[in-house]
Amino acid sequence: MTELAGNLLVAQSGGPTAVINASLAGVIQEAGKHECIEEIYGGANGILGILNEDIIDINDEKAKTIEGLKYTPAAALGTCRYKIDFKKKPEQAARDMDRLFEVLQAHNIRYFFYIGGNDSQDTSHKIHEEAVKRGCEMRVIGVPKTIDNDLPHTDNCPGYGSVVKYNATTVMEVGIDVGSMATDDGSCCIIEVMGRSAGWIAAGTVLAKRGQPANPPHIILLPELPFEEEKFLAKVKETVDAHHYCIVVVGEGIKNASGHEVGADKTRLDSFGHPVLAGAAEELKEIVQGKLDLKTRTALLGYAQRAAEHCASLTDSTNAFACGEAAVKAAVAGSSGYMVKIVRDQSNGTIRWTTGLQPLGDIANVEHLIPRDWISEDGFLPNEKFVEYARPLIEGELKYPMDGGLPKYVALDKSRIEKKLAPRS
Amino acid sequence: MTELAGNLLVAQSGGPTAVINASLAGVIQEAGKHECIEEIYGGANGILGILNEDIIDINDEKAKTIEGLKYTPAAALGTCRYKIDFKKKPEQAARDMDRLFEVLQAHNIRYFFYIGGNDSQDTSHKIHEEAVKRGCEMRVIGVPKTIDNDLPHTDNCPGYGSVVKYNATTVMEVGIDVGSMATDDGSCCIIEVMGRSAGWIAAGTVLAKRGQPANPPHIILLPELPFEEEKFLAKVKETVDAHHYCIVVVGEGIKNASGHEVGADKTRLDSFGHPVLAGAAEELKEIVQGKLDLKTRTALLGYAQRAAEHCASLTDSTNAFACGEAAVKAAVAGSSGYMVKIVRDQSNGTIRWTTGLQPLGDIANVEHLIPRDWISEDGFLPNEKFVEYARPLIEGELKYPMDGGLPKYVALDKSRIEKKLAPRS
Repeated sequence: MTELAGNLLVAQSGGPTAVINASLAGVIQEAGKHECIEEIYGGANGILGILNEDIIDINDEKAKTIEGLKYTPAAALGTCRYKIDFKKKPEQAARDMDRLFEVLQAHNIRYFFYIGGNDSQDTSHKIHEEAVKRGCEMRVIGVPKTIDNDLPHTDNCPGYGSVVKYNATTVMEVGIDVGSMATDDGSCCIIEVMGRSAGWIAAGTVLAKRGQPANPPHIILLPELPFEEEKFLAKVKETVDAHHYCIVVVGEGIKNASGHEVGADKTRLDSFGHPVLAGAAEELKEIVQGKLDLKTRTALLGYAQRAAEHCASLTDSTNAFACGEAAVKAAVAGSSGYMVKIVRDQSNGTIRWTTGLQPLGDIANVEHLIPRDWISEDGFLPNEKFVEYARPLIEGELKYPMDGGLPKYVALDKSRIEKKLAPRS
Repeated sequence: MTELAGNLLVAQSGGPTAVINASLAGVIQEAGKHECIEEIYGGANGILGILNEDIIDINDEKAKTIEGLKYTPAAALGTCRYKIDFKKKPEQAARDMDRLFEVLQAHNIRYFFYIGGNDSQDTSHKIHEEAVKRGCEMRVIGVPKTIDNDLPHTDNCPGYGSVVKYNATTVMEVGIDVGSMATDDGSCCIIEVMGRSAGWIAAGTVLAKRGQPANPPHIILLPELPFEEEKFLAKVKETVDAHHYCIVVVGEGIKNASGHEVGADKTRLDSFGHPVLAGAAEELKEIVQGKLDLKTRTALLGYAQRAAEHCASLTDSTNAFACGEAAVKAAVAGSSGYMVKIVRDQSNGTIRWTTGLQPLGDIANVEHLIPRDWISEDGFLPNEKFVEYARPLIEGELKYPMDGGLPKYVALDKSRIEKKLAPRS
C-alpha cells in the first residue's frame, strides 16, 4: 500500500451524544501522529457546512481544548440533519455530490471521516462509492454514533452507554422518590425517553432495578412491541396493588396494534419527513388517570438525556475515542468504505473492548432492533439476556473539571480556513 | 432550664428533595449525643404514619446506613401529603390532634421534629400550640425543607441548592446540544421545571449562563409575572434571529394576565385541592410552533429534578445536615415552637453559613417570592442580584459510592416498634 499524503476532513452529523466529541478527539489526536496527514480540518455543521465550504482549521485549536473534547457534550464542530438524498431528491443529490467533490478536491482532502448514525453512514457510503467512480484517491471511514444503538454489526454504538447510565440513574432516583411517597392511594409516574423505532434506550433503564424484581422501573414499553392498552392497565393495577406505586418507562415511538404512534403529533414533520414525537407519556397519563383514577405524573427527559455529560459512562467514552482513533489508523493503512465497529471480547470472563471494520454497504438502511428473546414473555421488561448485554456499557465515571458548581466544558475557537470556491449555488 | 428526658420522634413530609435525608441524619446523629434523649423513633410516611402508630425504631438501624442518608435521595422514612387541616376539615382535624397526642404520650415523645415545607411548618406550629394548651411538656422544632425555596426568614431552603445545581447543569448541557445543531432554520427548546407559585427554581437556571448574555437559557418565565404571549413570541424571534436557536425555561405554574395557569389540567386536583399541573411547556410549544413556525422540542424534568442526588450541591447538603443538628440542639436547650433557619454571613468577603431559630408562627402561610428588583425590567431573566444570591448555593459536589455504574444509595431497615394503642378509628 502506497502512503497517501493529503489533508483530513472530519465532521459530525445528526443528534449529538455525550461522547460524539470523544470520537472527534480520537480522530484528531491519532491524525496528529501520522506525517502523511498534513492539515486537519473540521466541517462546520456536518455535510451542510462542507457544501458551503465552511471549514474549521483544527490545527489552530489549543491541544488542551482537544483534550477537553473527551468530556464535552454536544457536537463541538456543529452538526446538521441535512442528508444527500438520492431517493427522494435525486437531482439535488447529484448537484450536492458534485459540489462536495469540488470542495474536497479544492482542499486536497484525502481522508474523510463522518461521525454519525444510520443516515450518516449511508452518506459516507455514497461518498466512498463516488470517489471510486471518479477515480479520486480518498479514504472514507464512518465513525459510529447514536444513542439509539440501532446500527448493525457493532456490539454497541457510542453514545448509548452514556444515555443508559443517565436514564437508569434518573429512573432509579425518581423510583426511590415516588416509592417514598407511596401511600394507600397509590400513584404512577411515567418517564418518556428517546427511541423512535428501536427500544434500546427505554430497555436500558431496566438496569435501575439492580436485579431486584420489586424495584422500579416496573413496566418498560418498547417500540418493538405493539402497545396494548388493556394489558398495560392491568399491569399498572397489579403493580400498584403490590407496591402502592408504579414506575413506567416509555420509548417515545411506541405504536398501537394498527401501527399508529401513541404519542405522534402528525401536524409537524422534521426535515427527514418523520413526524415530530413528544406525547407518549402524556397520552399514557390520560389513559391511566382516566381508566384507573390513579394520580399520575410524567417526566420527559428530551435532549437532557443525550447531553448529560455530567453522568456519562467512562466505558462508552473510551470506546467512542477508540472508534475515532481506529478510523484514522484504518484509513492510513489503506482502508476505505468501512465503518468502525465495537467488538466485545468476553473470552477470559472479563470484558475487553476492541474495534473492527465493517463494509459501509452492510450498514446503510439496516436497523438493529432488540431481539424478541431478550424481552420477557409478557413484553413489559427486558430479561436477563438484555441485562447481561447492557450492564457493562454503563460502567465507570467520566471525570470532568468543575467551576463554581457547574461542569466546565470546552468550546472550539472554530477559526475558518480561507474559501477557494464561489458560493454554493 | 431543667433537662427533659424522654423519646424523640422525627418525620418527613411533602415532596422529597435530594437533601431531606441529610437533615434526618443531622437529627439522628445529634440526638445520639444527648443522654436525655432515650429512644429515637421515626414516623413512617410522616404524620399519616404517626396517626396510625406506624413508628420506626431508628436505634435498630446500622450506623453506616444513617451515615449513608447524607447522600441518599427521597424520604428515607417515607413521606405523605396528609395535612391536619383545621380550616377545611375542623372536626377531622380535632380528632387527628387528639389521636396524635394519644400516640405521642403512649410512646413518651418529648422531642418532635418535622422536616418539611410550608404546610409541615404549619403542622409543627399547631402541635406546639396544642402541647402548650394541654400542659404536655414537649419540644417541637420544624426543620425546613423545600425545593421551592419559598419559606420566609431563612436565607434558603434545604433542597433548593441541589435542584438548582441539577437544573442549571441540565439547561447548560441541553443548551450546548441545541446550539450545536443550530442552522439557519432555527429551533427552540422549552424546558419545564417545578415551581407552582414561586419562580425560584426556574430562576436558578440563569446560573447556566455563567455570566455570558449570549449563553442559554435565553428566556426564563417565572410564575411571579403574568405571561404575555406577544412579548414572549417577540423575544423568542429576536433570540433566534441572533443565535439561530432559543432555550426557554418555564416554571410549571406560570399564569396569564387573568390569573389562569398556562399549563393547568383542571380535571385533576391533588389531595390539597391544587390543580395538577403538567403542561406549561407543551402549551408554549404549540404557541411557538403555531405562531413562529419554529421547530420546537420540550423537556419536562418532573420528579427527576428533586431526586437528582447524583448532581446534588455539597453546600446544600451541608446546610441541610446542620439544620437537623441545630433542631436537636435547640430542643435539648429548651426551645420549642421554632423553625430552624439558615443564615448567610458574608461579613469577611467569604460566605459562612450558620443556623438560627424563627418562631413557627412567623412561617405558616407566608410565601416568599422573588423580589421584583431581582428580575430584569422586561421580566425575561433574573438579574445580577439574583445571581449573587443563588450562585453560592450550588457550590461543591456531594460524594457518593458507585456500584456497577450506578450510585449506591442506602435504605433503612424500618423495623417497627410495638403498637400500644387500638387502631385509629
